[in-house]
Amino acid sequence: MNRRDFTSRLAALGLTPALSRLLAIPEIGSAALAPRVDGARLNRHIAELSRFGANPQGGVTRLAYSDADRQGREYVLGLMRDAKLTPTIDAAGNIIAARPGRDGSRKPILFGSHIDSVPEGGNYDGDVGSLAAIEVAQSLGEQGITTRHPLQVVIWQNEEGGLYGSRAVSGQLTGDELQNVSRSGKTIADGIAFLGGDPQRLGPTRRNKGDIAGYLELHIEQGGTLEREHTDIGIVEGIVGIKQWEVTVTGFANHAGTTPMDQRHDALLAAARFVDAVNRTVTSIPGRQVGTVGRMQAFPGAPNVIPGQAICTLELRDLDEAKIDSLFASISAKATRIGGETGTTFAFRLLHENTPAPSDARVRALIADSARELGLTMKVMPSGAGHDAQAMATLGPMGMIFIPSIGGISHAPKEFSRPEDIVNGANVLMASLLKLDAVDWT
Amino acid sequence: MNRRDFTSRLAALGLTPALSRLLAIPEIGSAALAPRVDGARLNRHIAELSRFGANPQGGVTRLAYSDADRQGREYVLGLMRDAKLTPTIDAAGNIIAARPGRDGSRKPILFGSHIDSVPEGGNYDGDVGSLAAIEVAQSLGEQGITTRHPLQVVIWQNEEGGLYGSRAVSGQLTGDELQNVSRSGKTIADGIAFLGGDPQRLGPTRRNKGDIAGYLELHIEQGGTLEREHTDIGIVEGIVGIKQWEVTVTGFANHAGTTPMDQRHDALLAAARFVDAVNRTVTSIPGRQVGTVGRMQAFPGAPNVIPGQAICTLELRDLDEAKIDSLFASISAKATRIGGETGTTFAFRLLHENTPAPSDARVRALIADSARELGLTMKVMPSGAGHDAQAMATLGPMGMIFIPSIGGISHAPKEFSRPEDIVNGANVLMASLLKLDAVDWT
Repeated sequence: MNRRDFTSRLAALGLTPALSRLLAIPEIGSAALAPRVDGARLNRHIAELSRFGANPQGGVTRLAYSDADRQGREYVLGLMRDAKLTPTIDAAGNIIAARPGRDGSRKPILFGSHIDSVPEGGNYDGDVGSLAAIEVAQSLGEQGITTRHPLQVVIWQNEEGGLYGSRAVSGQLTGDELQNVSRSGKTIADGIAFLGGDPQRLGPTRRNKGDIAGYLELHIEQGGTLEREHTDIGIVEGIVGIKQWEVTVTGFANHAGTTPMDQRHDALLAAARFVDAVNRTVTSIPGRQVGTVGRMQAFPGAPNVIPGQAICTLELRDLDEAKIDSLFASISAKATRIGGETGTTFAFRLLHENTPAPSDARVRALIADSARELGLTMKVMPSGAGHDAQAMATLGPMGMIFIPSIGGISHAPKEFSRPEDIVNGANVLMASLLKLDAVDWT
Repeated sequence: MNRRDFTSRLAALGLTPALSRLLAIPEIGSAALAPRVDGARLNRHIAELSRFGANPQGGVTRLAYSDADRQGREYVLGLMRDAKLTPTIDAAGNIIAARPGRDGSRKPILFGSHIDSVPEGGNYDGDVGSLAAIEVAQSLGEQGITTRHPLQVVIWQNEEGGLYGSRAVSGQLTGDELQNVSRSGKTIADGIAFLGGDPQRLGPTRRNKGDIAGYLELHIEQGGTLEREHTDIGIVEGIVGIKQWEVTVTGFANHAGTTPMDQRHDALLAAARFVDAVNRTVTSIPGRQVGTVGRMQAFPGAPNVIPGQAICTLELRDLDEAKIDSLFASISAKATRIGGETGTTFAFRLLHENTPAPSDARVRALIADSARELGLTMKVMPSGAGHDAQAMATLGPMGMIFIPSIGGISHAPKEFSRPEDIVNGANVLMASLLKLDAVDWT
């Protein structure tokens, strides 16, 4: 693409003058002439996809295995065909659209994301990375670029329920999990069949370490750091490890009118002090670790009965598993002390565990180079949320690109990323993909 | 009854030697010859009533308006007829069994309690006072005693749901409340009809201030004070006032992985600090006041979502309404401060309010005299629980008698009062009734 083509394309985008200036910043030099995506088309696709499962109050409820999910996938399959890709549905229900490379002996580079949502979710989580991946593939085709490596655009199924599609491919999905009931009401096995997969034949879908040349994923940050710090691009240092526990506090239920304050074994009072202790412990040391009590219920749950039991959850996240363990040790010691003060006992049951998944340092460098060449500001940061990329990190070099989420809002109808940030992210994805295609790592 | 009769009756009771000694303490003098109830019969009736709605794990679930409630009432009606009383069911569904007095122009003295229970309740709350009242009436008959005042043994309906039967009689029940849904699943109106009342014709059931000569109720303490202090009888100073609020804490729901600790508006963290503040405020001053958060739920309630809302209850009880109000003012100021610290807001909605109901000082003196003459230890104390007696206190002089609850356990299958304590309570009830019958208060 020559300079005049580039300028006319900018005009055709119909985007804000600010964005045009931003895209045009490196006016002279090769970077300005590097391949770019069709940003207007990408943002139009995002708007179109948002129709499937649209909520009256905005955002979408596009639960994995729902009719809205299947309709959204049909729309995506159409985009892939328009992009001259050849989509197929693997046995795990993932959509995989191949684009041949010049050297058929090379392992493929995978890139993509997911389009399923949480209940009352937004229009950007997953959708941006999915449609940007298709847009990158389409732009490569339109600009006559063929990579050395075969490319595979992947739309993972049921990310929000627990990375089911990507974990099937990485071999982390256990057979038992196929009987889990998803938020759609269907079991995972029934959901996979509903999407056109075959839950009885997951074996051949599985890939091994070294089977991929790399994996890239563009995603919204889902936090407010990039926006607050006026930074264009987040380069994901790794995806944090997560441990979740169910915490049961046992006291003794009794009459709230007749039991003096000093004779109580109030499970909710103990649980309340526990919630405060979790917060104080997690914030007592520097770092990006987070700790959350997201669920809480007191039993029997009547205004006039001292709770005999309280059940809550505890979740800790950090890039460093040892830090998670040391926070838990400290919290658990405080729980024991609170139990002693309140005449209650605490029991912890591990619900769920994800080990931290660091991204590949070499891929991070390629992403940083790409962002720099595009004139974008950047920041290396952890991903506090889980992503399909963490499953892919077990198979080959993984990199993730974040763009700002306005107000840090995610998993909610008000989730929003600016069109110009989405275009920035897609351009960094394309540039990083081409750089990854060009390197030979052994 | 002469001395020989009394001694042989003691033997017939088949009770512990300790109780026989206790009953026999004032061996010489008129008190020893005062009328006594048939304690063995009373305890047998309590055991028999416990069959209706019996739980497999002990105790009863005899919800107002359930089949078990109606069966229990049939049993009670039979006891009343055996006791030569004439039971009727009033329009509010209460069972009222009249026993004529010598002076038909006098207002009646009422005494009784309730036999409905909470879910998975015990065999003593309400049952003891109900069956003791019938036992007192039967013993009076058997001993040829006719009071000056007409007597009415009353079994109030749906005490546990909110004193519905007694409040209908005192005129405190509003027409709207008839559509409340009780724990049985029936509305109050349907429940009253189910028991043989007529919810359309409550008017004539209502009594006015001065319509009764007095009201007495025997009840288990439902707290552990009498047992802990080895005291036989509690003389109720008054029934505490109760205020209940629903407390809504509003923050902002967000992703628990991507939202840094210092960017959160965690409604559950705020609610947890509130629960702790309630406890510390209520226990920071001397007195018998109690404060309870019995219900708590966080929304949306997922382990990986920072709660955007938490809803809990607050209940404060004390004999002094001004103290309740001053505690609430202090708690509510602390809530505002917690809201400021956590980026959340607190809203309070009054759910329910009972004004304190002091007992009549003169009736308390009669009860104290009765206990003293029976050689029993006693203590003046508030009732932390609500009772039908508080509705009756609006109509005439009210007095309540407590007996020990072992371990202070109530509203639970393990609720227990010793047979000898029950007999003590019934004898104090009978003696107090006779003293009340003998006085002429203007």
